[in-house]
Amino acid sequence: MSATPSPAFLDTLADLLGPRGFTTAPADLAPWLTDWRGRITGAAAALLSPADAAETQAIVRLAAEAGVPLVPQGGNTSMVAGATPDASGHALIVSTRRMRAIRSLSPDDNVAVAEAGVILADLHDAAEAQGRRFPLSLAAKGSATIGGLVSTNAGGTQVLRFGTMRALVLGIEAVLPSGGLFDGLSALRKDNRGYDLRQLLAGAEGTLGIVTAASLRLVPAAAARSVAWVGLDDTEAALTLLRRIEARLGDTIESFEIVPAEALRLVLAHVHGTRAPLAGAHPWNLLIEATAPEGAADPRDALTAVLGDAIEAGLVQDATVAASEAQADALWKLRESVSEAERVDGVAAKHDVALPVSAMPRFLVAGADTVERRFPGVRVLAFGHLGDGNVHFNVRAPLGADDRAWLAAEGAAISAFVHDLVGVEGGSLSAEHGIGQTKLAEFVRTASPARLGALRAIKAALDPAGIMNPGKLLP
Amino acid sequence: MSATPSPAFLDTLADLLGPRGFTTAPADLAPWLTDWRGRITGAAAALLSPADAAETQAIVRLAAEAGVPLVPQGGNTSMVAGATPDASGHALIVSTRRMRAIRSLSPDDNVAVAEAGVILADLHDAAEAQGRRFPLSLAAKGSATIGGLVSTNAGGTQVLRFGTMRALVLGIEAVLPSGGLFDGLSALRKDNRGYDLRQLLAGAEGTLGIVTAASLRLVPAAAARSVAWVGLDDTEAALTLLRRIEARLGDTIESFEIVPAEALRLVLAHVHGTRAPLAGAHPWNLLIEATAPEGAADPRDALTAVLGDAIEAGLVQDATVAASEAQADALWKLRESVSEAERVDGVAAKHDVALPVSAMPRFLVAGADTVERRFPGVRVLAFGHLGDGNVHFNVRAPLGADDRAWLAAEGAAISAFVHDLVGVEGGSLSAEHGIGQTKLAEFVRTASPARLGALRAIKAALDPAGIMNPGKLLP
Repeated sequence: MSATPSPAFLDTLADLLGPRGFTTAPADLAPWLTDWRGRITGAAAALLSPADAAETQAIVRLAAEAGVPLVPQGGNTSMVAGATPDASGHALIVSTRRMRAIRSLSPDDNVAVAEAGVILADLHDAAEAQGRRFPLSLAAKGSATIGGLVSTNAGGTQVLRFGTMRALVLGIEAVLPSGGLFDGLSALRKDNRGYDLRQLLAGAEGTLGIVTAASLRLVPAAAARSVAWVGLDDTEAALTLLRRIEARLGDTIESFEIVPAEALRLVLAHVHGTRAPLAGAHPWNLLIEATAPEGAADPRDALTAVLGDAIEAGLVQDATVAASEAQADALWKLRESVSEAERVDGVAAKHDVALPVSAMPRFLVAGADTVERRFPGVRVLAFGHLGDGNVHFNVRAPLGADDRAWLAAEGAAISAFVHDLVGVEGGSLSAEHGIGQTKLAEFVRTASPARLGALRAIKAALDPAGIMNPGKLLP
Repeated sequence: MSATPSPAFLDTLADLLGPRGFTTAPADLAPWLTDWRGRITGAAAALLSPADAAETQAIVRLAAEAGVPLVPQGGNTSMVAGATPDASGHALIVSTRRMRAIRSLSPDDNVAVAEAGVILADLHDAAEAQGRRFPLSLAAKGSATIGGLVSTNAGGTQVLRFGTMRALVLGIEAVLPSGGLFDGLSALRKDNRGYDLRQLLAGAEGTLGIVTAASLRLVPAAAARSVAWVGLDDTEAALTLLRRIEARLGDTIESFEIVPAEALRLVLAHVHGTRAPLAGAHPWNLLIEATAPEGAADPRDALTAVLGDAIEAGLVQDATVAASEAQADALWKLRESVSEAERVDGVAAKHDVALPVSAMPRFLVAGADTVERRFPGVRVLAFGHLGDGNVHFNVRAPLGADDRAWLAAEGAAISAFVHDLVGVEGGSLSAEHGIGQTKLAEFVRTASPARLGALRAIKAALDPAGIMNPGKLLP
C-alpha cells in the first residue's frame, strides 16, 4: 500500500526543488490529472518538475524511502491513461517539462541527445535545421515528449521503414527505482554488455524508472517524397501491392496506410477543407509514401510505374500520385483526419491491435464480419498502418443507439471479443498505445502465465517498493 | 552452490530423452567441452540434446528442482567461452543440435521461423532458394546456430545497414528458468504489451533461459552488389568518406570496413591466393559494399562516382571497384583473412571494442599510440567495422618475445588499460562478442553500480535457483 505524503516530506521536496520545481496549487495540478482522451481523472499530492537527472534522483530516493508513489509524465498524451495518477491522491506527478534541452545534435553522427521533456515537434525542427530528420511522427507531436515516446515505445506513420521508437533509441539516461542513474547515453551501434537495459526501459511505461534523456538516431532529410492515394476493391490486393512496391522501391517506402470507404466518407463529411482524392468511391483506399534522400533517385517514377502496372493488371482500380507538396499534404490530411471525423460522428469501442502482416487482409474483412455478427448493429471501422500489421479496429455504436450508454453497457464485452479474435491469430491487443490503466485488465486476462510471471518478477526485482507508476502495465 | 547430478537424476533424464538425446560418453562430450578459441576446457556430467521445446521444458524443470546447472550450447562458436561449462563437472550441456527445423519461410511476409539449432549457413541457403536473404553473416556461419546468434546478439559484416541480431529478431520462443514456455514467436512488427522479453532474451547469453526458436526478418535478395577497395592516408578521411557515401547511396551501403596497412601485409604474406588490390601500399584501406534489390538501381555507378570525386578532392588516394563477382570475393577475402593471418603471425591480446562512430578515427590512431607508449614494443593492429563504431583492437606481442609467456604476463594489464581507454570515450568493452567467461572480470570491474545492480536483480528475479549458464555474463 502506498502512503499519503506527509507535510514534512512535501516540505523536503519543496526545499529541494524550489518554487519552479514544486507546486501543490490545485490550478497548477489540474491540467495533469486527466488523461488525454478525457476518460480518467486522478489526484496527486504535488506536481514535481525536476530541473535535471540529479534532482530526479533525489526525488526517487526520497520517495523510495517514504514509499510514496511517483507518476512520471511527459506531454500527457497517453492513449491508455498511462500518465494519470489514481484517485487516492497519494501520488506525486514527476513532470519532465523542465528537462527540455537538446544537449547535442550531430549531423555527422546522425545522433541527437535530447532530454526527456523535449517536445517531438521541436526535435523535428532542430533536426531539419541541420539537414537531418528524426523519423518518427504522430498526431500528438506538438505535445508528446521524448521521454514519453521512449517509455511507450511510440509508433506512428513511419514505422514501416524506420521501426518504432525502440529501433531509434541509441542510448538512454534514466533514474532507476533505486535512485541510481543508468548512464547509457553513449550512442553505440553495438554494445553486448549484458541485458539491454535500454530496451527494457523503452516501452516500460515508467514502471521501471524515469527516462531523463535519450540518444536518438537521425536520418538524412528527405529531399524528395512521393505520396499516392489508391482505390481498390479488396484487402488481399492491398498486401500484394505492398509486396510489389517493396520489391521495386526497396527501403524508400515509409508509409502504407489503409482507409476503408466509410472512414473516407466520414472525413469528407466532417472535416473542413477535404475533398475526394479519386473520381469514384472504392471499398478500400491506400495512402502510400516513399521518400529519398539528397542524391538518390526520386521515388516518384518508380511509384507511378508500379501503380500503373497494378491498375493494368486489375490489382487496384484507381490511383493518383500527388503532383505537389500541397497535394501530398492534402492526401495525408485525409488519412490523419480519420480519428477526428470518427469522433465527431459518435463513440466507438477502440482497439489498437497488431497481427502478422500476412494475416491482416483477412482479419480486416472476416474479423469485422465476425464482430458485426456477434454484436448486431455495431459498425466496425478499421484503418491504419497496414504495412506494420497494425490497425485501429474501432467498433462504433449501432445507428440510433444512445452512444454513452451503449459504450458503458457493451464496451467491455466487445473489447474482450476483439482481443480474443486477435489472440487466436497470434496478435497483440496493444500495437502502439501500450497498456497503461485502460488496457490493464484485458492484458492480464489474455497474457500467458510465463509472460506475466516474467514481467512481474522483473518489476519486483527493479522496483521492490513499487513506487514507479503503480497500477500501470502490471496490477 | 550447484550440486553434482545424482545417478538417479541422470537416469530420469536418460529415460526422458532417449539415446539420441542423452549421453555421458566421454567421446561424445569431448568436442563440446572446449571453447572455440581453445582457451578454456570444462567438464559436464552429461550432454542433453532435447528434440523440441517440450523436452527442453522438462529438462529445465528437473534441473531447477535439483539445483543442477545447465549450459545451453549451439554451435559452440562463442569468442568468450560463453557456452563452455566450468571445471566442476556438475553442469549438463543442453545442445540445441536436434532442434534444426526451419518451421516456415515466407517470402511474402519476409519472415523465417527457425529452430535454435539451425545453422546460419543453412538459413542463408533456404532464404536464397526463395529469393530472399537473411542479412546477418559472420565467419563462423558454417557452425553458428540461430539460438546462439540470438542469445549473443551477434553482429557481423552487415550491421551498418541491417543492425545486429537484436534488430532482426521478430519473435522468440524460449524456455524460461521456471520451465515455463515464453511463446513469443508471432512476428509482430509492433507489440507494446509490456517489457520486451524478446529483447531481454536476445543477448542474455543463455543466462535467462534457453531460446528454442526465433522468427527472423528476411529481406529481398540482393540483385546487384558493388564492392570497392580504397587506399587512404588517414582515418578521419575514412569517416568523411562514409558520410558522403551514406548521403549519396542511402541505405544501400552494407559494409564499411577498415584494414590497416600492416593487416593487409600479413594477409598477403600468410594467406594463399591473395594479392594486393591496389598498385601501391596505403596506411589505411577500406572495404565498402553496397547492394540493391531487384529492380532498384545498381549501386555501382553511384559508388564509382563518389570514389572518383573523393580521389579528385584528395580525400582518398586510390580505389578500385570490383568488376566481377570473383573480384568482389577476392576483396572480401582480404578482409576476412585478417584474423587468420594475424594468428599465423603470433599471439595478441584481443579486444572487441565499440565507440561512438565519430570517436573512432581518432581512437584508431591516438588509442593505438597510447597503448604502444604504455607497453613498449607491443604492436596494435586495429581493424573491422568502422561504420558500426566497432573495431577489433588487437595488441600483438613485441617482436622476438616469447608469445605465450608475454600474453600470460602482460595480457590482463593490457586489456584493463585498453578497456579503460574505451570507457573514457563512453565506449563498450564488448561490441559483438558478449561477456561470457573471458570478459567477466573486466565487465564487473568497469560496469557502473546502477547497471550491474539492475542486471543482477533481473537475473535473480528470473533465475532464482541460478541454474541457467552460471558463471557467464554475471558472477
